[in-house]
Amino acid sequence: MHLTARDIAQLVGGELIGDPDQTVTGVAGIREAQPGDLAFIASPKYYSALKTTQAAVVIVARAAKVEFNRVLIRVDNPVAAFTQVVLRVMPPPVKFAPGVHPTAVIAPDASLGKDVSIQPHAVIESGSVIGDRTVVGAGTYIGHGCRVGADCLLYPNVTLREYTVLGDRVILHSGAVLGADGFGYEPVGGKHQKIPQVGVVEVADDVEIGANSTVDRARFGKTRIGRGTKIDNLVQIAHNCVIGEDCILCGLVGMAGSTILGNRVTLAGQVGLAGHLVVGDNTTIMAQAGLIKDAPPNSLMLGSPAYTHTETKRIVAAIHRLPETQAKLRELEKLVSELQAALKQTPT
Amino acid sequence: MHLTARDIAQLVGGELIGDPDQTVTGVAGIREAQPGDLAFIASPKYYSALKTTQAAVVIVARAAKVEFNRVLIRVDNPVAAFTQVVLRVMPPPVKFAPGVHPTAVIAPDASLGKDVSIQPHAVIESGSVIGDRTVVGAGTYIGHGCRVGADCLLYPNVTLREYTVLGDRVILHSGAVLGADGFGYEPVGGKHQKIPQVGVVEVADDVEIGANSTVDRARFGKTRIGRGTKIDNLVQIAHNCVIGEDCILCGLVGMAGSTILGNRVTLAGQVGLAGHLVVGDNTTIMAQAGLIKDAPPNSLMLGSPAYTHTETKRIVAAIHRLPETQAKLRELEKLVSELQAALKQTPT
Amino acid sequence: MHLTARDIAQLVGGELIGDPDQTVTGVAGIREAQPGDLAFIASPKYYSALKTTQAAVVIVARAAKVEFNRVLIRVDNPVAAFTQVVLRVMPPPVKFAPGVHPTAVIAPDASLGKDVSIQPHAVIESGSVIGDRTVVGAGTYIGHGCRVGADCLLYPNVTLREYTVLGDRVILHSGAVLGADGFGYEPVGGKHQKIPQVGVVEVADDVEIGANSTVDRARFGKTRIGRGTKIDNLVQIAHNCVIGEDCILCGLVGMAGSTILGNRVTLAGQVGLAGHLVVGDNTTIMAQAGLIKDAPPNSLMLGSPAYTHTETKRIVAAIHRLPETQAKLRELEKLVSELQAALKQTPT
Repeated sequence: MHLTARDIAQLVGGELIGDPDQTVTGVAGIREAQPGDLAFIASPKYYSALKTTQAAVVIVARAAKVEFNRVLIRVDNPVAAFTQVVLRVMPPPVKFAPGVHPTAVIAPDASLGKDVSIQPHAVIESGSVIGDRTVVGAGTYIGHGCRVGADCLLYPNVTLREYTVLGDRVILHSGAVLGADGFGYEPVGGKHQKIPQVGVVEVADDVEIGANSTVDRARFGKTRIGRGTKIDNLVQIAHNCVIGEDCILCGLVGMAGSTILGNRVTLAGQVGLAGHLVVGDNTTIMAQAGLIKDAPPNSLMLGSPAYTHTETKRIVAAIHRLPETQAKLRELEKLVSELQAALKQTPT
Repeated sequence: MHLTARDIAQLVGGELIGDPDQTVTGVAGIREAQPGDLAFIASPKYYSALKTTQAAVVIVARAAKVEFNRVLIRVDNPVAAFTQVVLRVMPPPVKFAPGVHPTAVIAPDASLGKDVSIQPHAVIESGSVIGDRTVVGAGTYIGHGCRVGADCLLYPNVTLREYTVLGDRVILHSGAVLGADGFGYEPVGGKHQKIPQVGVVEVADDVEIGANSTVDRARFGKTRIGRGTKIDNLVQIAHNCVIGEDCILCGLVGMAGSTILGNRVTLAGQVGLAGHLVVGDNTTIMAQAGLIKDAPPNSLMLGSPAYTHTETKRIVAAIHRLPETQAKLRELEKLVSELQAALKQTPT
Repeated sequence: MHLTARDIAQLVGGELIGDPDQTVTGVAGIREAQPGDLAFIASPKYYSALKTTQAAVVIVARAAKVEFNRVLIRVDNPVAAFTQVVLRVMPPPVKFAPGVHPTAVIAPDASLGKDVSIQPHAVIESGSVIGDRTVVGAGTYIGHGCRVGADCLLYPNVTLREYTVLGDRVILHSGAVLGADGFGYEPVGGKHQKIPQVGVVEVADDVEIGANSTVDRARFGKTRIGRGTKIDNLVQIAHNCVIGEDCILCGLVGMAGSTILGNRVTLAGQVGLAGHLVVGDNTTIMAQAGLIKDAPPNSLMLGSPAYTHTETKRIVAAIHRLPETQAKLRELEKLVSELQAALKQTPT
């Protein structure tokens, strides 16, 4: 990418303040920007970043009351203008052409939809069905009897164990594993005897699952992920969990077995949920919280163990006053013993 | 799966109460059940779930004093009856037939046992030994000089780095990585200089390791996992750890280097253990706890940093009383200063 | 490995105390040692381990005032002597010979440097450039337009998505995924609409990234990892993060989007960082901490939420005194009400 500030101002129809010949070599957020980068500020609360940013050129609103010792470009809508530049300068997204690579190994009785793209070294086992226009990435494994919908995108090195079901427009990132055995054992004579995990994983339409995340098959029945739910990287979903629609699960979240999420639930990073819980619709569980009881709908949970946000905030504040509390208590003890002494000397 | 309630009652020899023509389309736990599902209740404490479950048909004990507005099937042993239906309706487990797929790449000096199954695109490097009846899944990599026992099941896309040793009947789920370098560096002039990691990983009989879990090779000697230990998904075992027999490590657990677990230790989800610790036999560390000191045998540890369960419970209770404690303290301060004032006015 | 204590004493030029015919079958740390192992003690603070170790032979300093009921070997430098034995007895590191395996799938317009080693079933897509002497492991995928430097080591089953850039001498362990889409959505009518992630990942020289770790591509611009930074297993780096030079990120760390680390930052195991934070140079964040505000340079942060070490230590100590604090408060309340009663009876 080699543009000048002038090129960018022309592209976005902006007003240029500063050196029009300033070279721009990259795009970045205002705080992450390196020398040569183009950045933008959409909200007045970030104007102060102009003092410290290393960006060469910054796009701001026409009305912004700011100055900058390098180049400003003033536009009506900074986000739209920046996006316009980004789409112009970033390399185009990769498209996988339809076709089956000769190194892919596809069972004779697997069924491939129209215009599927099966990449090198992919494996599709017996009885599986792949929907129209779906892409199966290099080295991706689709076990026996899986059903993959249309317009799915399975990146390289994904694993779907047998009988996994995906809806349409599902995106699975590299290293995701769906359908590994649930973690279930029975104690028999001091040893752990494996409980057969004969259920499946079922993923609804428009779900996206991040790199190296794992969704275990059910002990029986189904582990289910509802329509439109988005799961980040390195997330663990245990057997028999049921996740509603339009949920957000951030990185490194762990859900133990048979826990149920309603719709529009948000689990922030590194949240842990014990097994057999129910989380109501629209509830948010904040980062690193550990849920050990059901959470009602529309609640905000915090802490390990997790309580409602209001209670936890109150407690966290109390904890941070604790050293003072204890100092005050010692002082009070002293006062009280002085009072006792004084009272003893008082004639009754 | 398309059965009627009548079919199920006949299969399990149960007494049917309700519409015998009710269609059953799936099996599920009583709380996760969707319309059309068959569920069961084994313990009276879940009877109340009959009021809210969406299950179409529920199996209960003959003597259960419950009613249900859809279909009940009464049997002597609800768990056994439900399992019987599950085994009947779930698809059969996949078996991998013996043989070596032509796309597998096997070093001429690797040794394959009797009836091994080597799946597409597997790689087995020089000097490795694979035991009888072991399955090596598609895309799985077995490095130089590994020894894999008999009756092992390595699912697709597993990685064993060089010289890894597995006992018999070991199960490795997809994405597991055994034998990656330990995370060891020496500070040299402000930089981190890599310490060679020349040890190995040794896994005993009957161990199971979950999807995308990682067990690092030792700096020297061996990282060891004892017989019968079960490890869930996304668990990190650092170099030189020694794990005893029949332990349970749940999802997203992390063990730092050279930490030692006794036998029958349980680490619940997201537990973290610092390096160079010793955890005694039969000890349980509860979810999200962070262990920074040795834990004695037969103990129950909780919290971050972790203390014994008794101490932590007492402290957690105290913390949740804390806002009240501080309110009381303020009140008491007021009382004491009133007392002081009163005492001043008292003739001495 | 089958040596006698005599063999080892001769190899390291040490003084042998005990049975010279004692067989040595392995090497291990003093605490992890099994019967038959050789171990060493470098620091007097571990001398007490001689009472409990199962090691057969232990290397100590000549001047160490210790006894041992099996075999001691006294040397000038125990670490150096032990390392000498380790290098002698451990199997040699695996070297991958230059060449392209016939099962690798390499785009005609990809460019391979001198003496590269491309292992079985690797895939290198169109427009990618691989530097001299770099090893691309079995099953590893290198997407379109990637640039990989010289002397890199990509272990088996790594995934580099399109346009990822690696410097020289970068080590990527098995299962690592670089360049998966950032986790970004916009709420549109109650649903999560995917924000295109058109940026890239850029990794500088001498970086090492652990097994099954994930580094997401930027929404725009670059997610960057600075020279010499070392990342352990199962670490999640979100889109647009910028990590400085010579940082250490331990296992199961999670960084949310657009967070910036300075140089020589250490994140201990299971640390979580919220998005859009800045962590100053030389700062250490201790295990399981959760950072929700910027951290200044040269600081030590602890707890969830994280505060400075000094503050947190003080608070943790206060918390552990809390049950006593509350008991004292109850006692004090009693005393004060006794005082009030006494005062009432006092004539004024």
